[in-house]
Amino acid sequence: MTGRSYSPLPFADVAITGPFWRERLDTVLSRTIPSQHAKLKEAGILDTLKLPKPVPPLSIPRNSHGFTTQVFWDSDVGKWIEAASYALSHRRDADIEDKIDAIVEDLARAQSADGYLNCWHNGREPDKRWTNLRDNHELYNAGHLLEGAIAYFRATGRRRFLDVMERCMDHIAATFGRGPGQKRGYDGHQEIELALVKLYRLTGDRRRLDLAAYFINERGRQPHYFTQEALARGEDPAAFWAGSYEYNQSHRPVREQTKMVGHAVRAMYMASAMADLALELDDQGLKRACEALWRDVTTTQMYVTGGLGPKESNEGFAEPYDLPNEAAYAETCAAVALVFWAQRMLHLDLDGAYADVMERALYNGALSGLSREGTHYFYANPLESRGQHRRWAWHVCPCCAMNVSRLVASVGGYFLSSGDDGVAVHLYGGFAATATIGRARVNLKETSDYPWSGDIRIEVDPQTPASFALKLRIPGWAKGATAAVNREPVALAPERGYATILRQWRPGDVVALNLPMPAERIYAHPSVRVDVGRVALRRGPLVYCVEEVDNPGAPAQRLALPRTAPLEAAVADLFDGVIVAKAKARQLVPAADGALYSASPPASRGATLTAIPYFLWANREPGSMQVWIAEAIA
Amino acid sequence: MTGRSYSPLPFADVAITGPFWRERLDTVLSRTIPSQHAKLKEAGILDTLKLPKPVPPLSIPRNSHGFTTQVFWDSDVGKWIEAASYALSHRRDADIEDKIDAIVEDLARAQSADGYLNCWHNGREPDKRWTNLRDNHELYNAGHLLEGAIAYFRATGRRRFLDVMERCMDHIAATFGRGPGQKRGYDGHQEIELALVKLYRLTGDRRRLDLAAYFINERGRQPHYFTQEALARGEDPAAFWAGSYEYNQSHRPVREQTKMVGHAVRAMYMASAMADLALELDDQGLKRACEALWRDVTTTQMYVTGGLGPKESNEGFAEPYDLPNEAAYAETCAAVALVFWAQRMLHLDLDGAYADVMERALYNGALSGLSREGTHYFYANPLESRGQHRRWAWHVCPCCAMNVSRLVASVGGYFLSSGDDGVAVHLYGGFAATATIGRARVNLKETSDYPWSGDIRIEVDPQTPASFALKLRIPGWAKGATAAVNREPVALAPERGYATILRQWRPGDVVALNLPMPAERIYAHPSVRVDVGRVALRRGPLVYCVEEVDNPGAPAQRLALPRTAPLEAAVADLFDGVIVAKAKARQLVPAADGALYSASPPASRGATLTAIPYFLWANREPGSMQVWIAEAIA
Repeated sequence: MTGRSYSPLPFADVAITGPFWRERLDTVLSRTIPSQHAKLKEAGILDTLKLPKPVPPLSIPRNSHGFTTQVFWDSDVGKWIEAASYALSHRRDADIEDKIDAIVEDLARAQSADGYLNCWHNGREPDKRWTNLRDNHELYNAGHLLEGAIAYFRATGRRRFLDVMERCMDHIAATFGRGPGQKRGYDGHQEIELALVKLYRLTGDRRRLDLAAYFINERGRQPHYFTQEALARGEDPAAFWAGSYEYNQSHRPVREQTKMVGHAVRAMYMASAMADLALELDDQGLKRACEALWRDVTTTQMYVTGGLGPKESNEGFAEPYDLPNEAAYAETCAAVALVFWAQRMLHLDLDGAYADVMERALYNGALSGLSREGTHYFYANPLESRGQHRRWAWHVCPCCAMNVSRLVASVGGYFLSSGDDGVAVHLYGGFAATATIGRARVNLKETSDYPWSGDIRIEVDPQTPASFALKLRIPGWAKGATAAVNREPVALAPERGYATILRQWRPGDVVALNLPMPAERIYAHPSVRVDVGRVALRRGPLVYCVEEVDNPGAPAQRLALPRTAPLEAAVADLFDGVIVAKAKARQLVPAADGALYSASPPASRGATLTAIPYFLWANREPGSMQVWIAEAIA
Repeated sequence: MTGRSYSPLPFADVAITGPFWRERLDTVLSRTIPSQHAKLKEAGILDTLKLPKPVPPLSIPRNSHGFTTQVFWDSDVGKWIEAASYALSHRRDADIEDKIDAIVEDLARAQSADGYLNCWHNGREPDKRWTNLRDNHELYNAGHLLEGAIAYFRATGRRRFLDVMERCMDHIAATFGRGPGQKRGYDGHQEIELALVKLYRLTGDRRRLDLAAYFINERGRQPHYFTQEALARGEDPAAFWAGSYEYNQSHRPVREQTKMVGHAVRAMYMASAMADLALELDDQGLKRACEALWRDVTTTQMYVTGGLGPKESNEGFAEPYDLPNEAAYAETCAAVALVFWAQRMLHLDLDGAYADVMERALYNGALSGLSREGTHYFYANPLESRGQHRRWAWHVCPCCAMNVSRLVASVGGYFLSSGDDGVAVHLYGGFAATATIGRARVNLKETSDYPWSGDIRIEVDPQTPASFALKLRIPGWAKGATAAVNREPVALAPERGYATILRQWRPGDVVALNLPMPAERIYAHPSVRVDVGRVALRRGPLVYCVEEVDNPGAPAQRLALPRTAPLEAAVADLFDGVIVAKAKARQLVPAADGALYSASPPASRGATLTAIPYFLWANREPGSMQVWIAEAIA
């Protein structure tokens, strides 16, 4: 398999040195992660782990379907431990470790003798465990706790949490499966499969991989488990509050799915696990299913920001090309999970198309979920606003907060992959790493101001001269990329998004890569009805938006950009000097009489359009915002 | 008062003779009204009137707020009787009269000894009457039954139903008011006020007017009745399912309301009653409140079709300029009720701006609710569709069906008004009527193919020569209107939308009026974000739309119309020969690779755009539809 030959360099082996990610990483390590612990405590989430006496009482309102977000709280704790552990991999911190150890003790005490672990059920409804997999998130929670345990073990070498979760996985493996007396169930919210593959990769214990494969392969089979389970509860299966098993992608077996439907985060976690299993098991059927779903998502259902899931009602997918801007849900978690899936697809098949989407979602739809100062969040990431969308300090369902922090804290893990015959660089922006290529150890040091600049310098420093391929990703947006090795120009002939420089590398070799990144226009497929007659702006991997604060005098939606107006990229005195895009544009002017409809087109006046990177929006005073700008009508 | 001097000619005194309305009227009389009776029976609605044994059992599912549409069913029966009675005014029909009489007998039997009448409460929850005005629609139902009773009395002279409803009104007047022992309540869904004003106009009984005024004036006062009432039921008033008293416009006293909010039909019925009371009581405060709300609705919240209430969640108003096209709710009932309100405003103040909106809502947003063959309906009237919107034969909440039938069956009532010094013609399209102007009786006969043609001929035929003003409405869309009297050109100097021809009229006088109606473009205020860069088409009072069936090869949303492309109006072989609008346009073509986003704008090919009147959409095969067409980018 192609993919097998390239594996990601773990984030802990990739030092982030460039200004863009260094700033985000420092913010997350120093502000986001500590503040999230404080919020978890303040919200009472940590107290709910203190069994047998569950504190606090049910104070969170149930939603219209009768659920409370408290059933998900174990997962929030697990994700915070995971994010905090990634932080520890960068920099040990006794205080954070004490906090994690305290949580682990609570979890160990909360665990049942048989290994079952779920603080909601053990605290409130111990007799109802495993009776409602469709809704109650027990396997989802266990998955996130397991990811936390793995991350903490990797960061510190401490086994206690991992032991707790291994016992829990033993219990789950005994409970679910096709053997006699086992339940043929699987998770209502996919997640545990990803965690089990990680555990397999850590321990080599094949049972973990088999359990993950069981969950994925059992999903959507007939007789349908969620139907049987509802009947066993004495409920009408047809009264499922979400309306259809499409909601959790169990409407048919996963290998038969070709259109991505339902809840976007569930879908992305499932697809990520499918790609993991396709790789580990060399399962071509799963790979084909992944490819079909990928094609569907990326050619008909993805926002230009990499956001997914336009609908609030199912927090998920709609119809093809149905991508409303102001009403976009585009949950931060879904964009984070698209980064996960894209990275896994890339390691199934080293194609820059996957890396392009990974980068798109990372720099735009995912990063937009975290405020500049690192303590405020977006759950939904609309592409247009009247000013009503503001970041929140905390949320009744805080899933997105820890998803973005764990992503940023481990972002180095998305930069590089190595294999027997070479090393591939997927992302740029300043890193120092040591890769193992076959039997060679090679130090790589990349220096750049990416994503603000496409001037990239890579020092390739093998311990001894060694022949291998340096595969440089040439992003889909980069036209006319050039490179030189030791100042000698080399011809770049990128194949499927990667330019390969194959040579005997010697200590001190330097590659200079230039990725031109003019500010430019992007147009949507004309089936994206709301974007017909509109244009978006990007520069390099960054999608831009216009905010009212930079374009005063009228709502951002009144700007109209002539198709031929030159776009200028300029350093601005904003957010420590980001590059904005500017153009001479028109600002539409309402008729003097305020008429709602008129036989005359609106007049316009000249205006300078100033666009900022989308991920930075809503960090200043409230106001309107627009990604898809109307093109001026001649 | 200006307004008082002009009163509408009752529809029964206006014979519809022109082809447009004759066809709609014949369809409603011969097909819609009989089929609605069959549906009311088939749905079990008529059976629920047969007390004391309520049939059928509660078979209609309750919605997410625990309500069933059965609590509204009395109103559906009332509206059907009203529509059927309007039909009888055109043409008596023993079968229909027998059916109405049978219903009236059921209602008479269902009525309590004290006059209370509500089949839901009397049949199911007699002890809960008048305990939940906020939600339970008792006054709303009584209002619609009263409107039915008045219409049936006017059509046939039979008093029994009117007597039943007068007893009911006596009971209501005894129950509600500011006197000792009375409830200070009012209706959760405004409607009875309109009916009471009609009853006052029929009988001259001032108590009816006073009761209507009480309901309007009490609305929204503190302490808030719905809060008191919820507390009395042992409920938390803050748990009101609709979230805010804005939903039913009781958030503040009606005279203090300046922004139209909440449920659109409630809002329109309230505003209509406010205008009625302003007129009858010469209440300048109510008139000013009406004017402020009118300005708000028509300059910030109205679709180009006259549709109102973009949001499904509250079936009502959103933020200013928030007028999504595909997601538009724009309930048929709301457009029908806007016709009611506009007509009342016009009689408060004879200003063509009111008549323009009346005509806009009538020909577009209201008429679109009824299918061509007359037995299928729209509840929501979106301005864009992927083809998912289809007309229904019946609805769990069939309010719109009878609203559109009662409007069409009485459409002649919107054509003319007369006063002491003249007669005003608001709508054209072929009518014959006799107006009383001061002491003169004048026959008026208007002949035209309006709305297809603006060539209008009016025979003004006083019994003896008489001096009076003929006020001809010159629609806001009509530029360059001309007129002649007895072939002699007369100068038209329209003031506030009406051109006055003051002269001594003699038998045989003929006025020729020409209202030029080229197909033309309409643009929205640039704050209507979704319509920036888009254009709508109209011809005369008709708003047009493009349907896929006439524009094959791609979804209608892919059409782009150059700003300068000439528009041609042409008779088409569709729906018995309607006039379509045509233009040379572009059809956007997706990139060959199907990419969702691209640095190149979509290519396009030449296409002929064919638009049909909006009210006729969704009468042929399913397909996409668009009102606001993208303008082509040069």
